[in-house]
Amino acid sequence: MGKVATKEVLRFMTDCLKAAGAGPKPAELHAKLLFEADRMGHPSHGLNRLEMYVNDIISGACQPNNQPKLIKESPSTALVDGCNVLGSTASEFAMNIAIKKAKETGVGWVTVKGSNHHGMAGYWARLAALEGMIGMAFTNTSPLLAPTRSKKSALGTNPLSVVAPASKGEMFYLDMATTAVAVGKLEMQRRKGEPLPSGWAQGPDGKETLDPELAIKTSCLMPLGGGEKTSGYKGFGLAAVVELFSGISSGANYGHKIRPWSHSGSGGPANLGHCLVAVNPCCFAEGFGDRLADMIQHWRKLEPTDPKLPVMALGDKEKKAAKETDCNGTVSYVKQMIESAAALAKKLKVKPMEVKQC
Amino acid sequence: MGKVATKEVLRFMTDCLKAAGAGPKPAELHAKLLFEADRMGHPSHGLNRLEMYVNDIISGACQPNNQPKLIKESPSTALVDGCNVLGSTASEFAMNIAIKKAKETGVGWVTVKGSNHHGMAGYWARLAALEGMIGMAFTNTSPLLAPTRSKKSALGTNPLSVVAPASKGEMFYLDMATTAVAVGKLEMQRRKGEPLPSGWAQGPDGKETLDPELAIKTSCLMPLGGGEKTSGYKGFGLAAVVELFSGISSGANYGHKIRPWSHSGSGGPANLGHCLVAVNPCCFAEGFGDRLADMIQHWRKLEPTDPKLPVMALGDKEKKAAKETDCNGTVSYVKQMIESAAALAKKLKVKPMEVKQC
Repeated sequence: MGKVATKEVLRFMTDCLKAAGAGPKPAELHAKLLFEADRMGHPSHGLNRLEMYVNDIISGACQPNNQPKLIKESPSTALVDGCNVLGSTASEFAMNIAIKKAKETGVGWVTVKGSNHHGMAGYWARLAALEGMIGMAFTNTSPLLAPTRSKKSALGTNPLSVVAPASKGEMFYLDMATTAVAVGKLEMQRRKGEPLPSGWAQGPDGKETLDPELAIKTSCLMPLGGGEKTSGYKGFGLAAVVELFSGISSGANYGHKIRPWSHSGSGGPANLGHCLVAVNPCCFAEGFGDRLADMIQHWRKLEPTDPKLPVMALGDKEKKAAKETDCNGTVSYVKQMIESAAALAKKLKVKPMEVKQC
Repeated sequence: MGKVATKEVLRFMTDCLKAAGAGPKPAELHAKLLFEADRMGHPSHGLNRLEMYVNDIISGACQPNNQPKLIKESPSTALVDGCNVLGSTASEFAMNIAIKKAKETGVGWVTVKGSNHHGMAGYWARLAALEGMIGMAFTNTSPLLAPTRSKKSALGTNPLSVVAPASKGEMFYLDMATTAVAVGKLEMQRRKGEPLPSGWAQGPDGKETLDPELAIKTSCLMPLGGGEKTSGYKGFGLAAVVELFSGISSGANYGHKIRPWSHSGSGGPANLGHCLVAVNPCCFAEGFGDRLADMIQHWRKLEPTDPKLPVMALGDKEKKAAKETDCNGTVSYVKQMIESAAALAKKLKVKPMEVKQC
């Protein structure tokens, strides 16, 4: 493990994106997005992903200095063409439109085509919550999820996020892949040398496997809910809803038509679809924030099954991680990540990330 | 098992609701809602539930002849007070507003307070899909779901439904509780004398139980995803999102504040909350229906893990059940249901349901 000052993390990621070809504005926004994932305790979506974005810029699959375009709108909706920019540039552009429309009409529902991976979905939903709105973000991703009964994948991990502001300093925060787990969790089990729990992943024969090595090689995740007996078709359904809102609505690539995403940056433009939504809770009953805070605080007071494991409200884990990061002023990375970052610095000829050994 | 002509099912349910005190219009709508559940192969939400609605009318907790009121609106949103009517009356009223607004502004987002159980959520989402919209329905329900790590329940089974029209006669149809399974599935395992699969339900100690008898007695379901290791907190999060859209937004009862629902009709007005949404896909990229149909048809062609179990598109199960019901012109009910209906007929002094023995 190595610790890196938060400012240095941001500096390094911004430099790498700029060295790859991104202008200062898209590079800074994208670095901030990745840093927030590390800050909030979701390392799979942070520095860990930097090289994949860099390679997409270098290969030309992503064109970070284009401008997203608003190509169609109604009082409460918009369709945006991301023009192959970074997913962060497209998502910020789209969410700002959604927030504006929600302030005017109560709801803003914006779909995006021609985009790239937009990182941690919760970042975008939270933009709306910081403006007093219920924020939602959906995106399709490269195929990894096997529909119930299918031997192979046909949908992405298709995350969805809902974030809402509450009274008393509370915030409702949900950001989840619609697969049972993300690929990163398979890797963690492999590192620990432990078998996978049931319901996570399929082997090449289409049957559930508990072998992390085989699961990683196969790259075929089970939907939230696992197998058919435990209602995995619901997770399949949710992944499909995310696709319905993202690629199907916006005219981007969808489902089985999306390229695999790899470290090489090959495969041409991703043409991913997103959906960014803002709903103004002031349009409904007064006291929204108070009721939401009451519900959140009720959860924390519930008697736990195991006294050592208190019940957490949604978002508590992220809140705690962010607080720790801010207190320490540093982010901790595993050795492998530090080494990858050093190699990337060398490749891009940027100043290496300054690591405080510990 | 006994078979009952579809018209006779509708006649009997309408008569019972009228005998309890509902006027012809709300009785007919509610009977149609229950019949559709039986028709589409979701018997837990059909005739099986009739007595609970009847008892709520008789006890005065539900006042079926009131009129729902539009109490607040913006171009794309509305807040409706159901005034204690049947959930069907309130949901039809609200969804019609949502559809109208979606035609005008692209989106209609309507929340409802002061309502009662609105049956199969998919019925309401489908109303919008029949008008060319993406339809969504959310409702809170009486507490049955234990948040991750909690010994007791604090949210309902909180179903969500998304239905969307596609080309080539296809329709995307998802209607799911955010618990791993509904209570009806525990009852089926008990009838079959089989243990529960892992991840369905908790015992009184808050730990997972495989004993259907104990699970039914405890009435504490696990969220979609099951335990913490298999990401049950995602199902908890989804149930909470449904609550956020329903009770929290509308000012109805929410989460732990909702009365238990029982056959007795006791407990006073439920004051449940719903959320009905319509989004006009014509506001986004042309070809929505074609892309959706392509995705649906792709799923059916996927190679199945078990050749005897073909991959089904979302909604195929319901479509098949509805087709069978329509072909036969009858609905089949288990003996216990037939007997309950006969007892209800006697109690309400309505003409018993005519059953074709088989």
